[in-house]
Amino acid sequence: MHPVIEWQDGAVVMLDQRLLPGEKKFIIHRRHQEVARSIRDMVIRGAPAIGIAAAYGIALGVAELEHDPQRDRPEFLDARFDAIVAAITATRPTAVNLFWAAARMREVYERCRGDFPRLSRELLAAAEALDREDYESNRAIGRNGQVLLGERDTVLTHCNAGALATAGYGTALGVVRAAVEAGKRIRVIAGETRPYLQGARLTVWELQEDGIPVTLITDNMAGHVMQKRMAQAVIVGADRIAANGDTANKIGTYALAVLARFHNIPFYVAAPLSTIDPGTADGTGIPIEERDRSEVTSFRGQATARPATEVYNPAFDVTPAALITAIVTEEKVLRPPFAEAIASLRGLRRR
Amino acid sequence: MHPVIEWQDGAVVMLDQRLLPGEKKFIIHRRHQEVARSIRDMVIRGAPAIGIAAAYGIALGVAELEHDPQRDRPEFLDARFDAIVAAITATRPTAVNLFWAAARMREVYERCRGDFPRLSRELLAAAEALDREDYESNRAIGRNGQVLLGERDTVLTHCNAGALATAGYGTALGVVRAAVEAGKRIRVIAGETRPYLQGARLTVWELQEDGIPVTLITDNMAGHVMQKRMAQAVIVGADRIAANGDTANKIGTYALAVLARFHNIPFYVAAPLSTIDPGTADGTGIPIEERDRSEVTSFRGQATARPATEVYNPAFDVTPAALITAIVTEEKVLRPPFAEAIASLRGLRRR
Repeated sequence: MHPVIEWQDGAVVMLDQRLLPGEKKFIIHRRHQEVARSIRDMVIRGAPAIGIAAAYGIALGVAELEHDPQRDRPEFLDARFDAIVAAITATRPTAVNLFWAAARMREVYERCRGDFPRLSRELLAAAEALDREDYESNRAIGRNGQVLLGERDTVLTHCNAGALATAGYGTALGVVRAAVEAGKRIRVIAGETRPYLQGARLTVWELQEDGIPVTLITDNMAGHVMQKRMAQAVIVGADRIAANGDTANKIGTYALAVLARFHNIPFYVAAPLSTIDPGTADGTGIPIEERDRSEVTSFRGQATARPATEVYNPAFDVTPAALITAIVTEEKVLRPPFAEAIASLRGLRRR
Repeated sequence: MHPVIEWQDGAVVMLDQRLLPGEKKFIIHRRHQEVARSIRDMVIRGAPAIGIAAAYGIALGVAELEHDPQRDRPEFLDARFDAIVAAITATRPTAVNLFWAAARMREVYERCRGDFPRLSRELLAAAEALDREDYESNRAIGRNGQVLLGERDTVLTHCNAGALATAGYGTALGVVRAAVEAGKRIRVIAGETRPYLQGARLTVWELQEDGIPVTLITDNMAGHVMQKRMAQAVIVGADRIAANGDTANKIGTYALAVLARFHNIPFYVAAPLSTIDPGTADGTGIPIEERDRSEVTSFRGQATARPATEVYNPAFDVTPAALITAIVTEEKVLRPPFAEAIASLRGLRRR
């Protein structure tokens, strides 16, 4: 699959996921404000992809200053870098990868700020490294997670935690891909994921591209599917995991976790270490983004209710650690109690 | 509100609910096959409304024979009546009100078959009586059910069990209306109800028309709403209730019942006795209609996945009696054990 986000000739190129599966169009961003807008408007989405886009966006913001006569004035550059980071991080409050990527870029900035050409080069290298590492971490998540699945399991998933949400392999769908590569005959049931329909538009599309059998359902069918024993595991991604294991993910994830517990079906979260936020003690500390009412009162431009209808539109919910069977990371599979398991991670970045 | 289904000058007139909330258009049916098609294509929906449409449709089928020279030949009339009933009942397998209404019309037929003018008159009178009784039963359901709600409760509901699903007052929404009429300050949270969006299009619309505060959510937000204690009760309608209390209703109802149990929120079913099917022992005996994949892969012509995508599209699910707090009928509020409570009903029609 073509990379979802790429640096090309001084521009950040993104596949416009809002148009999938109908149309494959790339947007070329030449200014970091355009990258920020694309993150906010969900041209790309998914916590790891948001982190990658943020890193490239910050590198782009500095590269834009190449011909600025003031670029070698430290106070000017400090102020501009702060403004670039602020523009990029003000887009989506829940995905911690956004802030994690910004912190990594800031370290590079601190290290190189006296030397503009080097700074510019190193920021781009850091963004590319982050991109590459995300891909490798997804492969490792896949390897670690696929052993949890049986030879002929059907996996229920929600939203898109796939190639399109990451550098190109996926977290939840990375586990599915790795199981298929290991010779297992895995099937996927994908919830369509209202209001934005990432499941229908993205998960179904990318699994079809890979020839992995997938059945689409509306989100409210998940309980019935579990009642009928049509799925043997639930695997989802994560937008932020707190120090105790509480997990913010796409709205609807929490209900799946409750349903899985009721039906005694394992509920797995697959996410890179970059998604774990040791600075947030538990789920109550995770800000939940609320999005515009029009996402709920319409369906791809077709009105379903009067535009002025009162709407509640949280983009995420928090699944308490107690409902999670295991968290699959690139380092290892974490089991309860998650607070201890997370504290024991060697690769976890402390902020 | 204008009646949803009405007999006018020898025709059955229905409000085309598929076009709500955008457009208010009435369809005039002059042949019973057109009524059958409208039931199947969901011009009207909701178990009580389907029953009323079926009764009028059968009356219409016989009225069509007014000028048929063979109408007084008993064998001819028997065969035609069977064909009319078959056409009407072959439309939606889950709603028991359809079969209940057909059985009532058949009794009239048996009583009057020797006298065509009387038969035609009495069938129409029976359909009108059924229509009127449904309205009265809804009012009684409202009176019986509203005492279950607190002064300032927020009620979570699913699909449309309102005026549009019945003769004009509603079952689940009848309880809400009666509570509001009793002076309670009730708010409603309505799940949009994919794939057909009856919640967004119909429930929100009819509550707005009545000035009852309503907030629209996508179905996958219900768990989060309960986690946040934003609703104090769940009330839904029913398409068929088995002798043991197991309840078939719109897909997604079962998940709400599991979520309500997990959060210790009461889960109420509001339905007229015509929805109770003592001939079906439990939920395993209720046929579940599966509808076309296109309902899930698109909405009003907007595709969300490739048309050939594999889809599972059950229109209903079955909530086991054990997850139901109470069933509100026009006769009384039934409490567990439901098998005994149902067996004790005086008004229940045995078949």
